[in-house]
Amino acid sequence: MTTFDLNGYLTERRTLVERALEDHLHRAGEAPKTLAEAMHYSLMAGGKRLRPILALAASEAVGGTPNDALDVACAVELIHTYSLIHDDLPAMDDDDFRRGRPTSHKKFGEAIAILAGDALCAEAFRVAAQNRKGREVEVAEVVYELGRAAGAIGMVGGQVIDIEATGKKVDIATLEQLHRAKTGELLLVSIRAGARMGKGSDEDLEKLSVYGRALGLAFQIIDDVLDATADLATLGKDPGSDKKAGKTTFIDLLGADGARKRAEHVMNEGLDALESLGARAEALRALGRYTLERKN
Amino acid sequence: MTTFDLNGYLTERRTLVERALEDHLHRAGEAPKTLAEAMHYSLMAGGKRLRPILALAASEAVGGTPNDALDVACAVELIHTYSLIHDDLPAMDDDDFRRGRPTSHKKFGEAIAILAGDALCAEAFRVAAQNRKGREVEVAEVVYELGRAAGAIGMVGGQVIDIEATGKKVDIATLEQLHRAKTGELLLVSIRAGARMGKGSDEDLEKLSVYGRALGLAFQIIDDVLDATADLATLGKDPGSDKKAGKTTFIDLLGADGARKRAEHVMNEGLDALESLGARAEALRALGRYTLERKN
Repeated sequence: MTTFDLNGYLTERRTLVERALEDHLHRAGEAPKTLAEAMHYSLMAGGKRLRPILALAASEAVGGTPNDALDVACAVELIHTYSLIHDDLPAMDDDDFRRGRPTSHKKFGEAIAILAGDALCAEAFRVAAQNRKGREVEVAEVVYELGRAAGAIGMVGGQVIDIEATGKKVDIATLEQLHRAKTGELLLVSIRAGARMGKGSDEDLEKLSVYGRALGLAFQIIDDVLDATADLATLGKDPGSDKKAGKTTFIDLLGADGARKRAEHVMNEGLDALESLGARAEALRALGRYTLERKN
Repeated sequence: MTTFDLNGYLTERRTLVERALEDHLHRAGEAPKTLAEAMHYSLMAGGKRLRPILALAASEAVGGTPNDALDVACAVELIHTYSLIHDDLPAMDDDDFRRGRPTSHKKFGEAIAILAGDALCAEAFRVAAQNRKGREVEVAEVVYELGRAAGAIGMVGGQVIDIEATGKKVDIATLEQLHRAKTGELLLVSIRAGARMGKGSDEDLEKLSVYGRALGLAFQIIDDVLDATADLATLGKDPGSDKKAGKTTFIDLLGADGARKRAEHVMNEGLDALESLGARAEALRALGRYTLERKN
């Protein structure tokens, strides 16, 4: 068995994605200065770039190149970034800091923060469709799935479920549904969109969807485990913040050991679905294992 | 010369659009109840439905059917509605009423209002791509233009220019650029997207774009004229609200007569561009004249 250098892979892919994001921002350069600055501030604030890297890895897993999926990779990161800006707003989670820096509304004011999020959302679809010539079938499909995953029965719907569940006892089925909508759908569409742009077959996409759903759930369970058990220095944010916010976590329902076991079980089922894809799916496998082993 | 029954046309088209919008809302029925209600509340609050009707009329003007353009017609109305919800927010225009009813954030609270807007934006792109089979080339093109028109150098960018210009003296070029971005781009893309889905040629689209840019500008100039001269009962909103908000209007720069003359001149140039399209463009011509003659 070869050992896959995940750290090297992540660094290389992150660089590719961040260059492409800078390029998109540059092309939106006719935008009003304040708006362009606010978009840049949040988009280039770092982060793992997990969603775009999953898109690139999914393209490779079906025999495509990372480049085939670069536009949709940027599109999902644009949507993810816009959702963070809006989640942080006073009317929502009212957070003053993200990744060690003032949140968008603290830095630019609430109006510009709302508008920077709105602009990133629209730009995501523009970017997804910008190199459409010769691959309109894939682009149209991806846009449909992206709109669905980001909308009322996806990410935004999940945010509403989350708001309404806060302070209430919820069962495991509701908690899983909440996270599937709020974060799972966008992770899933990152993978499916990448595979689609890499010209994956319907059969390949089905396998990758099993993997993607598993990864989304495992990712969220481990988030709860880390939030409950890690210290501030490792986590980079206040541990225990979910508990303080009155949110039910997987730890509340399964305990720390039970939650970790459930994440492992779920992720292993997802990894099984990749078996027939062979060596091309090695990066996705490493990302799946990383989801369980990560410390922040 | 035949007289075109614009009122009958508008009523019929409005019914077609509103049925399709209801249908989309129904299909998003798995969404959390509060979110679905908030989306429905703003989307079905009435309004002229000018943008979707322009999309349908543009399809007809190039030899397509209204049905060819129905998805993109709904998409532009979804985007328009989301922009109104966000514009009304306390951090933006802080409006309590729209079309005689409480604004979204007054009715549902600020968090749900922000999220209802966000969901409508994503749904717009989903709806634009939902019947993509066999017309992926047109759908991909429309999505690109829609993302561009709604984003940082279009509608959202215009809103930022507007915020930053408030309370300042601006010249006619800046005022026109502001409105071209804030409202003109979405009106233009409504027409271009409708014509694209009706399989209009590049040449047709070019003519319709001349018309669309003229209509966008004339529409905004007349808005300012009405805001300055109409009474509350006719206008359905507080007249003089722009002046109170510290915004420069075309009246400030050109006077009421000068502004109206400019709108007529601009719109007539736009109407000239439709000449070669013949009888099929009769609805667009009537809509252009209506832009000048409307009372609210």
